[in-house]
Amino acid sequence: MVIKKEKIDKILEGYNKKDITIATLCSHSSLQIFYGAKKEGFKTVGIAKKEVPRFYDAFPLSKPDSFIILDDYKNITEQSDELLARNTVLIPHGSVVEYIGSDIYENMNIPVFGNRNVIGWESNRDMERKWLRHGNIPMPEKVANPEDIKFPVIVKYYGAKGGKGFFIAKNYDEFMKFKPSAPFTIQEYVVGTRYYVHFFWSPITDDGYRISRGSLQMLGMDRRDEANIDEMYKLGSQEYLRTLDVNPTFVVTGNVPVVLRESLLQKMFDYGERCIDASVELFGGLIGPFCLETIVTDKLEIKVFEISTRIVAGTNLFISGSPYSDMIEKDLSMGRRIAMEIKKGVELNKLSEIIT
Amino acid sequence: MVIKKEKIDKILEGYNKKDITIATLCSHSSLQIFYGAKKEGFKTVGIAKKEVPRFYDAFPLSKPDSFIILDDYKNITEQSDELLARNTVLIPHGSVVEYIGSDIYENMNIPVFGNRNVIGWESNRDMERKWLRHGNIPMPEKVANPEDIKFPVIVKYYGAKGGKGFFIAKNYDEFMKFKPSAPFTIQEYVVGTRYYVHFFWSPITDDGYRISRGSLQMLGMDRRDEANIDEMYKLGSQEYLRTLDVNPTFVVTGNVPVVLRESLLQKMFDYGERCIDASVELFGGLIGPFCLETIVTDKLEIKVFEISTRIVAGTNLFISGSPYSDMIEKDLSMGRRIAMEIKKGVELNKLSEIIT
Amino acid sequence: MVIKKEKIDKILEGYNKKDITIATLCSHSSLQIFYGAKKEGFKTVGIAKKEVPRFYDAFPLSKPDSFIILDDYKNITEQSDELLARNTVLIPHGSVVEYIGSDIYENMNIPVFGNRNVIGWESNRDMERKWLRHGNIPMPEKVANPEDIKFPVIVKYYGAKGGKGFFIAKNYDEFMKFKPSAPFTIQEYVVGTRYYVHFFWSPITDDGYRISRGSLQMLGMDRRDEANIDEMYKLGSQEYLRTLDVNPTFVVTGNVPVVLRESLLQKMFDYGERCIDASVELFGGLIGPFCLETIVTDKLEIKVFEISTRIVAGTNLFISGSPYSDMIEKDLSMGRRIAMEIKKGVELNKLSEIIT
Repeated sequence: MVIKKEKIDKILEGYNKKDITIATLCSHSSLQIFYGAKKEGFKTVGIAKKEVPRFYDAFPLSKPDSFIILDDYKNITEQSDELLARNTVLIPHGSVVEYIGSDIYENMNIPVFGNRNVIGWESNRDMERKWLRHGNIPMPEKVANPEDIKFPVIVKYYGAKGGKGFFIAKNYDEFMKFKPSAPFTIQEYVVGTRYYVHFFWSPITDDGYRISRGSLQMLGMDRRDEANIDEMYKLGSQEYLRTLDVNPTFVVTGNVPVVLRESLLQKMFDYGERCIDASVELFGGLIGPFCLETIVTDKLEIKVFEISTRIVAGTNLFISGSPYSDMIEKDLSMGRRIAMEIKKGVELNKLSEIIT
Repeated sequence: MVIKKEKIDKILEGYNKKDITIATLCSHSSLQIFYGAKKEGFKTVGIAKKEVPRFYDAFPLSKPDSFIILDDYKNITEQSDELLARNTVLIPHGSVVEYIGSDIYENMNIPVFGNRNVIGWESNRDMERKWLRHGNIPMPEKVANPEDIKFPVIVKYYGAKGGKGFFIAKNYDEFMKFKPSAPFTIQEYVVGTRYYVHFFWSPITDDGYRISRGSLQMLGMDRRDEANIDEMYKLGSQEYLRTLDVNPTFVVTGNVPVVLRESLLQKMFDYGERCIDASVELFGGLIGPFCLETIVTDKLEIKVFEISTRIVAGTNLFISGSPYSDMIEKDLSMGRRIAMEIKKGVELNKLSEIIT
Repeated sequence: MVIKKEKIDKILEGYNKKDITIATLCSHSSLQIFYGAKKEGFKTVGIAKKEVPRFYDAFPLSKPDSFIILDDYKNITEQSDELLARNTVLIPHGSVVEYIGSDIYENMNIPVFGNRNVIGWESNRDMERKWLRHGNIPMPEKVANPEDIKFPVIVKYYGAKGGKGFFIAKNYDEFMKFKPSAPFTIQEYVVGTRYYVHFFWSPITDDGYRISRGSLQMLGMDRRDEANIDEMYKLGSQEYLRTLDVNPTFVVTGNVPVVLRESLLQKMFDYGERCIDASVELFGGLIGPFCLETIVTDKLEIKVFEISTRIVAGTNLFISGSPYSDMIEKDLSMGRRIAMEIKKGVELNKLSEIIT
């Protein structure tokens, strides 16, 4: 159950808008989020587990002003009073829901940047598919029944984070070797090169790239680095490695920067726009950062195989700007863009439209 | 037939040198070209097909001041009067000749940055080879007859853009499976790692790295990202994938940044210099940006497998500078370097030496 | 025999601390070292072989003020008087010991940045292993006897630079095909993704990330680019290529930028700290730049497969800063960090603690 918007609005009304604190959990893209927040003049608080993490000391420009320490992230609501007293907005990066738990996250009374209603649409792969189809966005084919596997597929668990437990199968026999136990989806394995495109949608600004509501920005692109799939080829072919019981896995360990063929940019923006338009129709719009995870084929088609509805870790490459954001303004990271949006929300008295 | 240089010189004489407009087609590396031109204070015009492209709105620092819309790029000469009235210099990026057509491009009366005579030398792979041999630049071996394939080769069509239609063969039998119908060339497939090195040659400046005429700069390096060859290994070995009818293709979809072992830089400059010297002797010099497409072997030999005679899309990674251009001056992209050269041409009254 | 510290201290006492020259050999990461030294206001001298290298002309911000030319790097001591007269500190990048020879390097009377005693610990792979074990840092398993190879291993020669001559074997038979003649070590081949992490340890500062003595910084990360292992998969599977006598080789040709999953950063700092603590206990501390060469597995374990005890070439990617160093201060390369440390040593009158 998502907390009532009126409750959050009421909390926001009570906030001192000139003294807002930006908070997030100390992981994933927190260095970037704090870096951007500090640049925009916000107070910052890091929410950490068990103890104050030491690594922030190494990066003084990203170290939050203070920390709140929890025994377990699931206990975050114990600190609600403290957080509200500090006029806190929580930035939900890609690990926040996983760490807090979606039930607690949805229902807690701490104001969150973006639209909490997006959760149901991203954690369930059928809902995600429905959303993308609603936007008429090209996706890899879905295979309903394992018996129907006639081309290479990738099998993904629902809500799996960081690619854990994914596997590839080229036919029914290979599928049966893995026999997934949790809810899963079977997707065509599209061959091509991957681009993870970092978008930001603002419902409250209308300069730059205007879409039917608000405006859209592309701030960068990365490619995810996955163990073991990305480097296991160095040891031998997959067919051979299988005999050594070395099988492909898809655990995200980091990111590398990329740029996309310029002639494909317009199509990418079109898909970003359709994704937003569909989200507005289906659940009021996702608001803020999102990432289209795409494969470009040798026919220069773009297939969106997944959508991330929050700041993705690939943006950590671009803490001082990317080849794309540099064409908007200098030193524009996704972390800073989020802080700028909150600032804009205050200025325009539209915080309520971007916080839930 | 390339338009007479005197005609272009006459047009240039009529130009208001204080009010030059930089134009290019709205694709490939146009964002970077406009970005650099605007930084250097030029007016800019984007030449687009059918409609004004929307994606420039997303990148305000790269959006041209105005657009000229064509039904087809091949109709560009219909707009010659308009372009000349605006004192336009057209920047030929890697897709310009392809889109306009080489006949029209060579003969049109619109002043073009660089040497139009280079076309014959790059579109025909035998001519390109002659040029590089003239410069004594190490290349992969050429195989004259398919029957003589004794080691892995890559077969390339003449003038193919973006790697479309290339294929690898390890012997005559494999070659025969593809049976190319258009003119092609057979090149040894050298095993190693690829570096696409972005050079700029100025015939009118003589500071920095001086060569026999003018000076040479290295502004960056990238590696091209090709579908499907770059990621198909994730699905299985090529031998196995062939049975699923998944074969390697070489369509460029994007770029990743790289730096080269420092001890190889001098050799790379030597090859860049020889390439220019040969171009001066053979056709008056290529002028401006070019790219040596190289493979470095495990013996640390450098083989140049192709040369691009214009701004390459890999430079799009470095819109705010690369690890190399940062050692020349800050914020130095290839796009900006082109604009600086035109500015210099005006200052020194040497536009005629860099525009044809 | 390493030269007595008292001798170097005596030389340092005679130096004019306001007129120090930073020198290095003209290769590896020299462009970056000179760039940083010049930024910090030092005089610079490039030590080159046979002739003044031309490529510095192409990068004016990295061109040393002057050059000293040697017939052979091994003759460097012939120039000791000249170097001492200029109050020179030599920066030992990753090729310095290889070019000069470890005997000459250890014993020469030219002040060197960092701890010369580290050499014995890095060139001998058993000593390196002892050091890392002393620090309780997870490593790939060592296989004592080739007969015991029960999983894929990589066989490395002692002191091999740039990965030359390494090979992979999956069993004893494969090992015997290569029959290494020089001293070697056999290491488990861990499957995962590689991160080369650039650290800097200062024994004389105590702000930022404090460790038991001094402070630690993480300035960036790269992935090495190796011929042929990184791109040979494009030609076919290793099993097939072996029949064409194309075997994997591991010669470093360049570098690509990466960032690491943020949740692994603390562990990486812990290993960096343990590495320093162990070095202090074993041989007085390594001082300055070092690199942990790591593999991250799909269980998100980090295995350190090697340690570089000097500035690594991967830092050349970040001449104007990396996503990590940007969170410390802008334009902070490893080259500049070294120069800053020497400046700090002068200010605090602690040069003797960082120079040997």
